[in-house]
Amino acid sequence: MSPAIIESSTTVDVLRINGERLMQMMADVAAIGSLPNGGVRRLAFSPEDVVARKLVRSWMESAGMAVTIDAAGNMIGLYQGRFPHAPALATGSHLDTVPNAGIYDGTYGVIAGVEVARTLHEQGIRPDHPIEVIVFADEERTMIGSKAMAGKANLDPNFYEHPHYEPIEMGVRAIGGNWDQLPTAQRASLAAFVELHVEQGPVLEAAGNPMGLVTGIVGQRRYLIDIDGSASHAGTTPMTMRQDALVAASQVVLAVNRIGEKTGDGYGDQVATVGAMKLSPNVANTIPGRVEMTLDMRDLSNARLDAMLADLEQQMADIADATGTKISIKPQLRNEPVPVNSHIYNAISQVCERLNLPTQALPSRASHDAQIIANITDMGMIFVPSQGGISHSETEYTSPEHCIQGANILLHTLLKLDQHYRCSETVGDAKANVKVS
Amino acid sequence: MSPAIIESSTTVDVLRINGERLMQMMADVAAIGSLPNGGVRRLAFSPEDVVARKLVRSWMESAGMAVTIDAAGNMIGLYQGRFPHAPALATGSHLDTVPNAGIYDGTYGVIAGVEVARTLHEQGIRPDHPIEVIVFADEERTMIGSKAMAGKANLDPNFYEHPHYEPIEMGVRAIGGNWDQLPTAQRASLAAFVELHVEQGPVLEAAGNPMGLVTGIVGQRRYLIDIDGSASHAGTTPMTMRQDALVAASQVVLAVNRIGEKTGDGYGDQVATVGAMKLSPNVANTIPGRVEMTLDMRDLSNARLDAMLADLEQQMADIADATGTKISIKPQLRNEPVPVNSHIYNAISQVCERLNLPTQALPSRASHDAQIIANITDMGMIFVPSQGGISHSETEYTSPEHCIQGANILLHTLLKLDQHYRCSETVGDAKANVKVS
Repeated sequence: MSPAIIESSTTVDVLRINGERLMQMMADVAAIGSLPNGGVRRLAFSPEDVVARKLVRSWMESAGMAVTIDAAGNMIGLYQGRFPHAPALATGSHLDTVPNAGIYDGTYGVIAGVEVARTLHEQGIRPDHPIEVIVFADEERTMIGSKAMAGKANLDPNFYEHPHYEPIEMGVRAIGGNWDQLPTAQRASLAAFVELHVEQGPVLEAAGNPMGLVTGIVGQRRYLIDIDGSASHAGTTPMTMRQDALVAASQVVLAVNRIGEKTGDGYGDQVATVGAMKLSPNVANTIPGRVEMTLDMRDLSNARLDAMLADLEQQMADIADATGTKISIKPQLRNEPVPVNSHIYNAISQVCERLNLPTQALPSRASHDAQIIANITDMGMIFVPSQGGISHSETEYTSPEHCIQGANILLHTLLKLDQHYRCSETVGDAKANVKVS
Repeated sequence: MSPAIIESSTTVDVLRINGERLMQMMADVAAIGSLPNGGVRRLAFSPEDVVARKLVRSWMESAGMAVTIDAAGNMIGLYQGRFPHAPALATGSHLDTVPNAGIYDGTYGVIAGVEVARTLHEQGIRPDHPIEVIVFADEERTMIGSKAMAGKANLDPNFYEHPHYEPIEMGVRAIGGNWDQLPTAQRASLAAFVELHVEQGPVLEAAGNPMGLVTGIVGQRRYLIDIDGSASHAGTTPMTMRQDALVAASQVVLAVNRIGEKTGDGYGDQVATVGAMKLSPNVANTIPGRVEMTLDMRDLSNARLDAMLADLEQQMADIADATGTKISIKPQLRNEPVPVNSHIYNAISQVCERLNLPTQALPSRASHDAQIIANITDMGMIFVPSQGGISHSETEYTSPEHCIQGANILLHTLLKLDQHYRCSETVGDAKANVKVS
């Protein structure tokens, strides 16, 4: 086989993926673990996960890709480039799902990547860089696949122990990995990683369904807030003698909401949420003596997250004073913000412009394998609209039109990045100068 | 026996109950069902309830009282008056307790009544009216004793069915009643009823421990408030696109609290409380889609309770509009306010003045047998201070000094009312002109 090398931008501009094939592959994978209500349950490491991977592997192979599985169970389809020792341009996502999932989350990014490779193969297009389509292992629960690839996995399997799941070593083995060799999954270098995903939120739909230019993956901080007042009889305790933990908690909830809604001075994209609350004793005729509640704050900027916390702490001190309660806050979880690479962001933006697709910049406020892979290479993300903003639900939906548009953006973004990261026969450019292992 | 008739107000003024005997009786009853931590568990109809009643009966008899038990299990000690056919002046309370009770709630009112009778008997004082000390059946759970006496009991025993208790017919039988004869417990007439009780709230202690002149027993209304928003991802849903049921609920809690704290225009004694709240789905990373919460409002005035509800409904409509949620409220419970009789209130006030005891007027915001008995006769209540406002707890405490003061007020109030309600040999006055059955 000696594919023609297409370098003319005019020719490339008219290149399109096969939308019908893309949607048929989506439907075929959706059938594996399908639920009666149109959703899917394809838990990581389950028989359904294994079957879906086999099917995707067959499509990769039909696109001329060499398929390997690393020690973490990541399945990697390699579409060889003109410079086979250059670091790969990678895309991909995951096939595993939450228990009551829709058919787009993760799967769409994998299938679009495979369709891009099938299109290149069919059209005889051979980019300079190898192109990899990666099916990451267990994104929904442990992110073990991307973490192992980034060298960020905890090597102790007990760290991932969970009463509802089999031991992770067994799971990884079920999809072709080998826990004992986990460190070998770490990649020394990739030229870049681009993940295509459904938004899982309502921003794009509300803006009239443009394509999403992801500005970064937000940092997340989770806290537990405890409010101690004094439980007493709701009848016999006059209003002036109360230390009502729920009255204090309500003021804290509204303070959190105001901080979330703040605009100006760089504010505007942050979110802040009290999602869970527990009252004690929680009976109708007793003033609540104690309230415990969660706080979840997300933003692209650590400095802004720091400022939000400081603002809240000041307000909580005032609320405690005014209500005669004691309020404490302690951190529970902290994920750092991950910016996208500006070159990749610009490449996606320019591709959309050339394809005449309107765009909207937005942060990703959900987690993705891309944020882990950003530890080892330049990272970018493309979002397509989610109807009603719904995700992790059987009613998750993205139109075929948007699915096809997203895959075309991915195709042209990878081709554009192929030109951005220049290659030689033996090494890549300064940014990506180590061979693919 | 031919007791001397004491009518001189000077002599009466120096009359005092036996404080040591009062506190010894309190201690003796406290030993029945005592808990290791100093509290007591003497559930209605339990062996402990039966034993306590037997002991109290013996004291009644030693005070020259005739003791009967009606069909509801109410134990009635009758200290005969000069006009034996006149309607009785009654006092009393209950000996049954909540599961983890202090030793004062209810018991104090019974024992003080018995001590008043013992004092009259010992001093050879014979009032015009018969004086009754009533031990009501099961105040804490069903109020079956006072309800039957007022003709307000539900005659269907299944109405009182509870998985944690034996059938009520069996309970009533255990303390000497007879469910089949329940209607015979109804009293055609009493001259008046005065209940002495611990406050169970912090008002008197905060005022420097005056004696409490009860202005009435508040009406209570309980509601269930439902708030429907939209559950969605706490990360991916921008602040501007949320319908956060907890943000709406927090505004409702603060509106309730403001209504409770309102003063002027007759406001000031009302209370309003959100005691219980349930969030759905109640997880840290999801915006609460639904909140259910209780509302408890109490005041002496039905008109004010109506106004409080109307105020809240208006505010809830505004909150629903502002937050994009749907808020509904439905009634769960309604107890009417019960005013005290002004003659009895004034008699208690004048007695306190004569005894040089400072007083404070306050509503009773807890339920008492007195509010039921008010259906059939003039009613008044005396409160003594509760340390820390604590009740229904093992740490409930009222000092011996206050216990003794309260019993002396009860003694002199009954003697004063004995003069207020005039008697003839065959009938009482216009207000109480039917013989005691």
